[in-house]
Amino acid sequence: MTYCVGLTLNKGLVFMSDTRTNAGVDNISVFKKMFNWQTKGDRAIVMMTAGNLATTQAVVSLLDERSKAPGDRQPTILEAPSMFQVARMVADTLREVVQSHAPAGQSADAAFNATIILGGQIKGSDPRLFLIYPEGNFVEASGDTPFFQIGETKYGRPILDRVMNFQMPMEEATKIALISMDSTLRSNMSVGLPLDLFAYRRDQAGTYAERRINETDQDYVNIRDGWGFALRSACQNINDITMSWC
Amino acid sequence: MTYCVGLTLNKGLVFMSDTRTNAGVDNISVFKKMFNWQTKGDRAIVMMTAGNLATTQAVVSLLDERSKAPGDRQPTILEAPSMFQVARMVADTLREVVQSHAPAGQSADAAFNATIILGGQIKGSDPRLFLIYPEGNFVEASGDTPFFQIGETKYGRPILDRVMNFQMPMEEATKIALISMDSTLRSNMSVGLPLDLFAYRRDQAGTYAERRINETDQDYVNIRDGWGFALRSACQNINDITMSWC
Repeated sequence: MTYCVGLTLNKGLVFMSDTRTNAGVDNISVFKKMFNWQTKGDRAIVMMTAGNLATTQAVVSLLDERSKAPGDRQPTILEAPSMFQVARMVADTLREVVQSHAPAGQSADAAFNATIILGGQIKGSDPRLFLIYPEGNFVEASGDTPFFQIGETKYGRPILDRVMNFQMPMEEATKIALISMDSTLRSNMSVGLPLDLFAYRRDQAGTYAERRINETDQDYVNIRDGWGFALRSACQNINDITMSWC
Repeated sequence: MTYCVGLTLNKGLVFMSDTRTNAGVDNISVFKKMFNWQTKGDRAIVMMTAGNLATTQAVVSLLDERSKAPGDRQPTILEAPSMFQVARMVADTLREVVQSHAPAGQSADAAFNATIILGGQIKGSDPRLFLIYPEGNFVEASGDTPFFQIGETKYGRPILDRVMNFQMPMEEATKIALISMDSTLRSNMSVGLPLDLFAYRRDQAGTYAERRINETDQDYVNIRDGWGFALRSACQNINDITMSWC
């Protein structure tokens, strides 16, 4: 499985993904699930993928090849005039790949499916964050629900629901994404280290922070060790339940 | 859906369940999912159910009827010599009900399935906690993993993984179960108030705390309001992530 979370904030966008893929518990590997394309001063585009690895790699390769052969047949993601158009291209590519695999092989429902979080900014427009479904349709995040998750979403959801908001500074939101990720890592074997982090500052195409976080990363160690302790303290600060024994 | 959690502790057993059932988002109802049988001074048996409501109600009715007509054809759960035997009876009843529905109607995989958490103590033995699968087999909790969850288990799992342990006082463990429940309530519409709580003290058959928790319950309000605040504080007490912008 996978866990990826994308946050849209007043000040920019934050993306975090794990890197574990598995075909059964006895066949696990490390694969990057986060990809970015940038044109300095013009645009930054980030994509995170969950689902069938063959599908997501094919989508990334197609987008990549097409972006290197512009004018080939249609504008590429590096030429599209808006993030909405980029989302449509990614969505069409995803649907194309899913459909191309479907008839020949296995016909099981979800076998070749994948879901994508796509975010970025093109000069002159706001940063935007999309969730793209394997059917090729997509939704956009807003201030009301300023995040999208894909893969193993449930473990890391309560902290996002309770603590994260659109106005938060990027450093704090990134910390929350890492806590959400750590909650998932700890409870689900199919999500694993290292993690990939990409943060993009609004209106500053070309200014970004990119980082791979492994088990010795000091920020990760702080959170892994500190969060358990913080939860236990938080728990103790809440009154015990009154029990009427009979 | 459903969320139920059962804890086994040094000092006794704690059970908590929600009461929401749904057949689609436009058809939700309140049904009790927690049932108990007691013989003062001899035994306390508690059961929580998740899955098809027709199946779980049939299981409870059968166990109940049989316990009221002892000697009918086999020892009942009120006569069984051990919790292991009680678990076998419940498991057999569950499998019987699942199988009796299967051939006539729908043949989809999980349609009539249900899962059960069963716990209790019979005088002279230790308290025991079981998780019973629809196939009729079951597993028992131990000090290493002193809890079982059924239904929507993922939202409420991180707090259990991090904070709960076998040596904990019952009041504190109950609070953790309520936090785990509240995290689930908040993030998943298919789990809903009111909640049922049953706590049973080791070696004191007949001494128990039973309670229905609704949205005005002061302990619940404390946790609902306090936990969000506590999480935000806990979050702030952890160092922000270092971001190297480039």
